[in-house]
Amino acid sequence: MLQEWIHEEHTDGYGVKWKITEVLHEEQTKYQKLSVVNTVEWGRTLILDGNVQTTETDEYIYHEMMVHPAMNTHDHVEKVLIIGGGDGGVLKEIVKYDTVTKIDMVEIDEGVVNASKKYFPKISSGFVDQRVNLLIEDGIQYVKNCTTKYDLVIIDSSDPIGPAIGLYSKDFYQDVFSLLKEAGIMVAQSESPMFYREIFQSIYKNISDVFPQQFVYLASIPTYIAGPWAFTMAIKRDNPLKIASDIEPLTGLQYYNKNIHCSAFSLPEYIKKLLLA
Amino acid sequence: MLQEWIHEEHTDGYGVKWKITEVLHEEQTKYQKLSVVNTVEWGRTLILDGNVQTTETDEYIYHEMMVHPAMNTHDHVEKVLIIGGGDGGVLKEIVKYDTVTKIDMVEIDEGVVNASKKYFPKISSGFVDQRVNLLIEDGIQYVKNCTTKYDLVIIDSSDPIGPAIGLYSKDFYQDVFSLLKEAGIMVAQSESPMFYREIFQSIYKNISDVFPQQFVYLASIPTYIAGPWAFTMAIKRDNPLKIASDIEPLTGLQYYNKNIHCSAFSLPEYIKKLLLA
Repeated sequence: MLQEWIHEEHTDGYGVKWKITEVLHEEQTKYQKLSVVNTVEWGRTLILDGNVQTTETDEYIYHEMMVHPAMNTHDHVEKVLIIGGGDGGVLKEIVKYDTVTKIDMVEIDEGVVNASKKYFPKISSGFVDQRVNLLIEDGIQYVKNCTTKYDLVIIDSSDPIGPAIGLYSKDFYQDVFSLLKEAGIMVAQSESPMFYREIFQSIYKNISDVFPQQFVYLASIPTYIAGPWAFTMAIKRDNPLKIASDIEPLTGLQYYNKNIHCSAFSLPEYIKKLLLA
Repeated sequence: MLQEWIHEEHTDGYGVKWKITEVLHEEQTKYQKLSVVNTVEWGRTLILDGNVQTTETDEYIYHEMMVHPAMNTHDHVEKVLIIGGGDGGVLKEIVKYDTVTKIDMVEIDEGVVNASKKYFPKISSGFVDQRVNLLIEDGIQYVKNCTTKYDLVIIDSSDPIGPAIGLYSKDFYQDVFSLLKEAGIMVAQSESPMFYREIFQSIYKNISDVFPQQFVYLASIPTYIAGPWAFTMAIKRDNPLKIASDIEPLTGLQYYNKNIHCSAFSLPEYIKKLLLA
């Protein structure tokens, strides 16, 4: 049984604690310890191996920023591949687009999908969409053997420890590059530039070894870690980023808008320096 | 004596903890409990009433963003008033500008100034500048009685509990408005829109009751609280914000740059909604 406060120690010198009011579910899946709790600050929350993964109250920041910048950069996305993202949050944003005809989603842990369907009906609402093809398998193997070509590949991976580590390697990015169409885009969550500086730098380096151009962008996600959270958008061909007046975002979003599309790519000096190092 | 971890409980449902390696100083000043410690993540750190106030490693984010957006919006700042900011961080950024001829700084707690001079030599380096006139007194009384007119007033206040609460009132903003020159600018730190939503909204409302125009802008400051931190720039006369190509920022800054100047003012949808509420 969890205690009244759950503690996350993000580094040796920093931790956070969230007060919980109820434990709804606990299990050991094939890959990780999974809990669903109710919290004071963020409502219902999914915890994987002791780390807050998804909350019903602030999930929109991460999920909108994983999807809409790329969807508003590419002119016409039809085929999408999602690696990871078992809670369905990325999928929920993708199914909002009518241009999309096919979504392959490859999640290694069926336990996450099942828990999300049961406890997070809004976040998992995309799973019933007719365009979705859910595959419970290892994303690294999938991209090695895949013959489909995609317009957009989204890497919604957990932290690079344990089985997810391969999702941050140059070989993996090379496989993703191969299965993108000519104007295809890859988006990868890229960790915290302040607290996980070396991982952030190595993601950038590995992607730049494979793609002709990439752009780091930022958003503040209160339940991940203090400071900005990074994302990387890598584009298969050279192509300037769009400016605000080129974009007509979907209505009804809670974080993303025209101005955010552009401003998220503005990096503070200390982050630019990390990328040049 | 402090423990190995210091805990901050920001709300009833959220807290953080920082590992400390050394306690350098502790005192009860006339107004608050003041500690100087060394931390694992952020080096030397000033703690006031149990809250991390200033760290030598990430102070530049808050202090640059309190100063440079306004200095690059106003065409020619000569006279500056700083209310609060006893650690000297805002002052350190202001003294970088040659146009500035006079800086009045009004800090209520001399203990903070003395601790900063002793333990934070870089952050407090501006106090020796010949243009600085340090007054140890209550900022609320100062602005009521002040007859000097300023180009820029910066409100570097602690959280709106206890003596600082008056620094968030409409009356106080009215007094600041009165002592600004015609094109004068006020900057006020504006708390966390996610965790201190009502305070954030009330600051906006109180300022908008007094100033003809104001702009909220954001930065992520890892040692304050997770998610974005808000600032407000209020301008005495109607005047459009500058765009990136209009700006020639100082060199050698660690956070602020041309693109940040503009992008910081782009607000996510959920924050725009809070301001319209």
